Amino acid sequence: MEDLVNLESKLTLLAAPYSPGIVGYLNDYKILVVKVRGEFVWHKHEDTDDFFLVLRGRLTIQLRDRDVVLNEGELFVVPRGVEHCPKADEETHVLLIEPRGTLNTGDAGGQLTVAEREI
Amino acid sequence: MEDLVNLESKLTLLAAPYSPGIVGYLNDYKILVVKVRGEFVWHKHEDTDDFFLVLRGRLTIQLRDRDVVLNEGELFVVPRGVEHCPKADEETHVLLIEPRGTLNTGDAGGQLTVAEREI
Repeated sequence: MEDLVNLESKLTLLAAPYSPGIVGYLNDYKILVVKVRGEFVWHKHEDTDDFFLVLRGRLTIQLRDRDVVLNEGELFVVPRGVEHCPKADEETHVLLIEPRGTLNTGDAGGQLTVAEREI
Repeated sequence: MEDLVNLESKLTLLAAPYSPGIVGYLNDYKILVVKVRGEFVWHKHEDTDDFFLVLRGRLTIQLRDRDVVLNEGELFVVPRGVEHCPKADEETHVLLIEPRGTLNTGDAGGQLTVAEREI
């Protein structure tokens, strides 16, 4: 991976929604970009917070007691252990930061689980 | 601090360059915004990488062997132990992520060192 990362260029390498690509590392954390469209799956991460920054579009992070709606340039950190389910009506570009090894589907698993990959 | 963070709104709260404000946390990391203008100070962080994402403007991260020039939407992680010195010709807005307790001036100290503060 090159060390200077242009996020929009990296996003052009992603075809499917909810299939994140690693673009860098910060100590033992991975930095990812992902395209979001439609609804993901309800899940939680027992061991880590979960960082979302919207680069383009609009992301709704559904929590059990409310919806958090993020527009471009807005970020939200889902606290560890809190169930959440991202969704977007139109294609939305998101920057994620999580500890290496964090599963995208957390405790839920299932068909939307993907392996870590660098792009 | 509210949990949904609009980065540009937070940046309006910053008056001086090189005086970052904490806008959130990710586990034991702090998430900060900072205005950059002019040249900072050469320094390094022996214990951590250093995350920079340009939100607006143009940031030059001087390394001892090259300059890394970041435009809006571009990120760079300075590896731990690597000397660097940020600069910008015009006001530039940057998102930073570092472990809590990381000094902004690293090993250099001096007049540009600022205390951690939430905004």
